[in-house]
Amino acid sequence: MDYQEILERIYKEVKQESDKGILANYIPALAEIDPNKFAIAIHTVDGKDYSVGDADEKFSIQSIAKLFTLTLAIQKFDEDVWERVGKEPSGTAFNSLVQLEYEMGIPRNPFINAGALVITDMITNGVGKAKKEVIEFMRKISNNRNVSYDFEVADSERNTGFKNVALANLVKSFNNLDNIPADVLSVYYHQSAIQMSCVDLSRAAIFLANKGYSPYCDEEILGPRQTKRVNAIMLTSGMYDAIGDFAYRVGLPGKSGVGGGIVAIIPGELSISVWAPGLNPSGNSTLGLRALELFTTYTEQSVF
Amino acid sequence: MDYQEILERIYKEVKQESDKGILANYIPALAEIDPNKFAIAIHTVDGKDYSVGDADEKFSIQSIAKLFTLTLAIQKFDEDVWERVGKEPSGTAFNSLVQLEYEMGIPRNPFINAGALVITDMITNGVGKAKKEVIEFMRKISNNRNVSYDFEVADSERNTGFKNVALANLVKSFNNLDNIPADVLSVYYHQSAIQMSCVDLSRAAIFLANKGYSPYCDEEILGPRQTKRVNAIMLTSGMYDAIGDFAYRVGLPGKSGVGGGIVAIIPGELSISVWAPGLNPSGNSTLGLRALELFTTYTEQSVF
Amino acid sequence: MDYQEILERIYKEVKQESDKGILANYIPALAEIDPNKFAIAIHTVDGKDYSVGDADEKFSIQSIAKLFTLTLAIQKFDEDVWERVGKEPSGTAFNSLVQLEYEMGIPRNPFINAGALVITDMITNGVGKAKKEVIEFMRKISNNRNVSYDFEVADSERNTGFKNVALANLVKSFNNLDNIPADVLSVYYHQSAIQMSCVDLSRAAIFLANKGYSPYCDEEILGPRQTKRVNAIMLTSGMYDAIGDFAYRVGLPGKSGVGGGIVAIIPGELSISVWAPGLNPSGNSTLGLRALELFTTYTEQSVF
Amino acid sequence: MDYQEILERIYKEVKQESDKGILANYIPALAEIDPNKFAIAIHTVDGKDYSVGDADEKFSIQSIAKLFTLTLAIQKFDEDVWERVGKEPSGTAFNSLVQLEYEMGIPRNPFINAGALVITDMITNGVGKAKKEVIEFMRKISNNRNVSYDFEVADSERNTGFKNVALANLVKSFNNLDNIPADVLSVYYHQSAIQMSCVDLSRAAIFLANKGYSPYCDEEILGPRQTKRVNAIMLTSGMYDAIGDFAYRVGLPGKSGVGGGIVAIIPGELSISVWAPGLNPSGNSTLGLRALELFTTYTEQSVF
Repeated sequence: MDYQEILERIYKEVKQESDKGILANYIPALAEIDPNKFAIAIHTVDGKDYSVGDADEKFSIQSIAKLFTLTLAIQKFDEDVWERVGKEPSGTAFNSLVQLEYEMGIPRNPFINAGALVITDMITNGVGKAKKEVIEFMRKISNNRNVSYDFEVADSERNTGFKNVALANLVKSFNNLDNIPADVLSVYYHQSAIQMSCVDLSRAAIFLANKGYSPYCDEEILGPRQTKRVNAIMLTSGMYDAIGDFAYRVGLPGKSGVGGGIVAIIPGELSISVWAPGLNPSGNSTLGLRALELFTTYTEQSVF
Repeated sequence: MDYQEILERIYKEVKQESDKGILANYIPALAEIDPNKFAIAIHTVDGKDYSVGDADEKFSIQSIAKLFTLTLAIQKFDEDVWERVGKEPSGTAFNSLVQLEYEMGIPRNPFINAGALVITDMITNGVGKAKKEVIEFMRKISNNRNVSYDFEVADSERNTGFKNVALANLVKSFNNLDNIPADVLSVYYHQSAIQMSCVDLSRAAIFLANKGYSPYCDEEILGPRQTKRVNAIMLTSGMYDAIGDFAYRVGLPGKSGVGGGIVAIIPGELSISVWAPGLNPSGNSTLGLRALELFTTYTEQSVF
Repeated sequence: MDYQEILERIYKEVKQESDKGILANYIPALAEIDPNKFAIAIHTVDGKDYSVGDADEKFSIQSIAKLFTLTLAIQKFDEDVWERVGKEPSGTAFNSLVQLEYEMGIPRNPFINAGALVITDMITNGVGKAKKEVIEFMRKISNNRNVSYDFEVADSERNTGFKNVALANLVKSFNNLDNIPADVLSVYYHQSAIQMSCVDLSRAAIFLANKGYSPYCDEEILGPRQTKRVNAIMLTSGMYDAIGDFAYRVGLPGKSGVGGGIVAIIPGELSISVWAPGLNPSGNSTLGLRALELFTTYTEQSVF
Repeated sequence: MDYQEILERIYKEVKQESDKGILANYIPALAEIDPNKFAIAIHTVDGKDYSVGDADEKFSIQSIAKLFTLTLAIQKFDEDVWERVGKEPSGTAFNSLVQLEYEMGIPRNPFINAGALVITDMITNGVGKAKKEVIEFMRKISNNRNVSYDFEVADSERNTGFKNVALANLVKSFNNLDNIPADVLSVYYHQSAIQMSCVDLSRAAIFLANKGYSPYCDEEILGPRQTKRVNAIMLTSGMYDAIGDFAYRVGLPGKSGVGGGIVAIIPGELSISVWAPGLNPSGNSTLGLRALELFTTYTEQSVF
C-alpha cells in the first residue's frame, strides 16, 4: 500500500474542511497556536516513515503523555498497576468525581485525569528524578534528544489547574497517592507539557504496534501481553467521552490530547500520529479525527 | 492452527476451575439450569466447525439477542439508528437511569436494556410481525429451523420484569418509543428468550467476522462498513460494566447474556461462542470468560 | 390582626405583578385554565374564614393531595409508614431516579412522586375502595360533599404519565409496592385530580394548625405528635426542589401542586391556601408564592 | 416552665442510654475526648441560664462555626450572599461533589463544606485579619474572652483535610473563591477549631431566638428578617443528611458539629446547646439528638 500517496490525498481533503474545531483556551500557551497547523506521520513496524504537513514541528502532547507514563508504570509494577486504577471506560466526564467517591478513590482508568495522577504517583520517587526519568524515556523511544518539556506550558497548567489540584487531593483523601499531591501534580504538569513532533510520536509509539518491541530504538519496551493490554485500555478509554465514536469511525486503539494530537495503532503494521490544534466538544482534534477516519477507510485497515 | 486441539485443551483446564460463578436467579427458568453445562463452538470464515462440550444443546441467549436486533435495525435504518441511541459505553450500571434522564431519553448504547428497547421499537411494526421477523432471521443465519422462542422464559421475564417496564416507560416519556411500551416489551421479552446452541450461535455470527457476508447462509447480512462498526460497538459496549476487563483479558469484540452465553469475533478469521451458566458479579459467564481468555492466549489472536 | 384587610392588600399587590409564571402544559386539562385566576383563603383555629379572589372556585389540587394521603397512611400505620418511605429532602429532582436505585427502592420522602406512590399503595386495598375512601376523607375534612374527582384530569394523567408508570414499576421492582403498579397508579391519578376550592382547602387543612384536631369537622384527624411531624415533613420536603427558598421567603410548612395551589400552616393559628395557575420553574405557583411571602411579612408570622 | 427540672430529668434519662455513638476519628485530637462528657445549656431571651453536666467545659464546635461565619457574611453582604451559595438542602452527602460540578461551582447551601468555604472566602480579606475577626466575634457574642482557637485541632485538620483541599480547589476552578484556596482553608480550619462551652454557645446564639438582637451582649447582630432566614436555612440544611429526621424528631432549627455539639433555637423563647462527643452515622451527636428530642417532647415546644 502506498502510504505516502494516501497521506497526501487525506491532506488535501482535510485542508478543505470548514469546521476546524476550537483551540483549547484554558491554557494560554495552547490558545496561541496557529489553528492551521496540520500534520500526519506514520512509522511502520519495518521501520519506514511517511508524513505530510507540519510533521517535524513540535507540539504539546498533553494527555497523550498518559500513554507513556502508563507504560513506565507497567514496566515497574506489571499487573499490580490495576490494584490502584481500574480499566473500565468512565461514561460521561460528568460522572468522574462522583465515581471516584463511589468507588472509594480508585479511578476508573489510567486515562482520566484522576487515574493518570495515580499512575504518575506510582512512578514518582522524588520529583526531579521522576521528571528526568519521564523525559529520558520519551527521548529514548523517539530517539531524539530534542524532545523536551515546555516549561511555560507546565507553569501555565500549574496556575490554572485548580480542578487537577482538587482531583489529586480527593484521591489522596482515599489514601491512593503515596506522594504528597503537590509533588505528583508537578510531575503531572510536566509530563503533559512534553513537546515533540508527529514524526517523533509515531516512532515513539511503534512498540505498541509490534508486540512491545521497538525496532526503532532496538529495545523491548513491554512484553507482548502487556502491549496487547495497553492497546485494549486505549481502545476502551483513550478518547475522553468519545470512546465509542472513535471505535465506530476509526476502529483503532488511540490516545488524544488537548494539544490537538492523536496517536493510533494498527497492531502488526504501524503507528500513526496526527496533529491539528482545533478541538471538538469532546476535546479531541477535529481534523485529526477526520484524518484518521479517512485513513482507515482508504486503507481498509482497522482492528474490526 | 489446530482449533479442535486447542478447544479440548481449554475444556480440560476450565473443567478444573473451582469458581463456576452463580446462576442468574431472577428468572426461575434460568435458575434451574445444570450449572455444569459447558460448551465452546467455533465457526471459521472458510466454513469449518469446531466444538467441545454441550455445544449442540440449546440455551437461552438473553442479551446476545441485542446483537441481532441491532443488526436488523441497521439493515432497515443504517446510520439513522444513531439518532435515537448513542454509541458510548455507559460507565457503571448504577448510572444508567440518571444518564437516561440527563441525556433526555437517548440511551447510551444499543446493548444496555434501555437502548435495546429503542432498537426493538425500531423493528416493531406490529407485535406478532416483529416476533416472527426476529425468529425467522435467527433461523436463517443459523440455518436451523430448530431455533425457537422459549415461551416459558418469555413469560417468566414478563412477570418479573418491573425494571424493564420502568425503563420502557421512561424512554417513552421522552418520546423515544414509537410503539406503546407493552408492545415493545413483548417483543423484547421474546427476543431475550430465544434458545439456540453454541454451534448455531457461532454460525449465526459468522457474518461479523467476514465483512458482513455469511458464507454459511450465503447472504450479505450487513455491508463491510456496517459490520466493522457493529464490532466496534460490541467491543466498547457489549459486556455490561466489564468492557475494559474483557478487552484487556480477551481482546475481542463480544456480546454476553445472563443465560451464560458469550459470542465473540476474530475479524477475518472466525466467530466463537461459549456457554457456561454460572455468572460473575458483572453478569458475564465466569467459565465462558475464562475459556475465551485462554483461547486468545493460546492462539495469540486478538484485535490488539 | 385584621386578616381580611391584609388579604385585600396582598390581592392588590399581587395583581400588579407582571411575572405570572407559566401554566403546566403536560396535562391538557390544566393548560386550559384561565391564567388570571387568583385566590387566597384562611381558616383560623377559632373557626373564622377570610378570603379574596376566586376562593370558591374549584381547582385541581394535584400534589397537595399527597399531604392528605400521607395523613390517611399515618392514621393506619403511624410510625411504620417510615419503614417504606424516608423523610429527607431529595436534593435536586435530577437525582430522584438514581436515589431510588441507590437506596434500594425506598423513596426519599412521601412528597416526591415515588414516595407518594408508596403511600398510595399503603392505603390501597382494592382500587375502588381506595378511591372512595380518599374522596370521602376529603369531603369530611372540608365538610363539603361537592369536593370531587375531575375524571377528565385523571384520564389525562393516565394517558401522559409514562414517567409515573416508570416510577411505580421501579419501586415495584424493589418490592416496595404490595399492589400491582396499575392499581396504585389508578388511585394516584385520581387523588391528584381532586378538585376543591381554596376555602375548602384551608378548612380541610386546619387540623395541621391545631395539634391534629379539626374544630371544623369536630374530629381528631391525627394525634398532636403526628401532626407536628407531618408539618416537619412538609417544611423539609413539601415544595419540590425549592424547599430552602420557601422556608427562607415564607417560613411556613407548606405543600404545593402543579395546579397552582399551595396550602401552608401557621401552627396554633391558621391554615392558608392560595391558588394561581401560573408556575415558576420549580413547579410552584409564582403568584401563590408571592402572596404567601407578603402574608408572613405583613403579619410577621412564621415558624422562625 | 421549670427548665432546670426538665434538664435534670433529661440528664438522668440520657445517661442511661446504652448507644452513645462513636467518636469522630479522622481528627486525632477529637478521637481522644472522654466519650462520657455530656452537657446541656439553655439561655432564654429574658436572660436566664440553665444547665446540666459539663456545661462549662470547652469543646470543639466544628461545623457549628458555619452558623456564625454565615452570620458575619450576612452582616457584610446581606442578600448578596445568595449569589454565590444556594439555600437548598443537599440531598445525600454522596451527591455533593457531582452537584457542585453540575451547578457550576455554586454549593447548595452554606452548611455543606463547599458552601462554608465560599462563606469563609467572603469574610476573608487577609488570613490573619479574618481569623482575628472570627474569634473576636465569638468572644463578643458569648461575652467571654476565654473562647479560643484550639491550634492543635486546626493543625490536625490541615494535615488530614485532603478532601477539603479538593473542595476548595474545585470551587476555585469555577471562580467562586476570591482568595487562594490555601488562605480560605487556613481560616476555615481555625473557625472549625473554635473551642467554647455549652453555656457560651447558648448565650452566643441567643440573637437567633430574639429577632437578631442579643440582650446578652446588648447588640443587634442581624435584622429581624435576616434572623428569620438564618433559622430557615438552619432548619432545611443544618443537620448534614438528617435534616428531615431532626425536623421530625426535634422540630427546631439546629446546627451540629462533629465535635458532638448541637445548638438549636426556639424562636421567641430560648437557645439551647448540647454536647456529647459520640456521633451517629450521619455525624450528629447521638445523645445530643436524644436530649433535644426529649426537650421538645417534655416542653411541648417546637416550631411545628
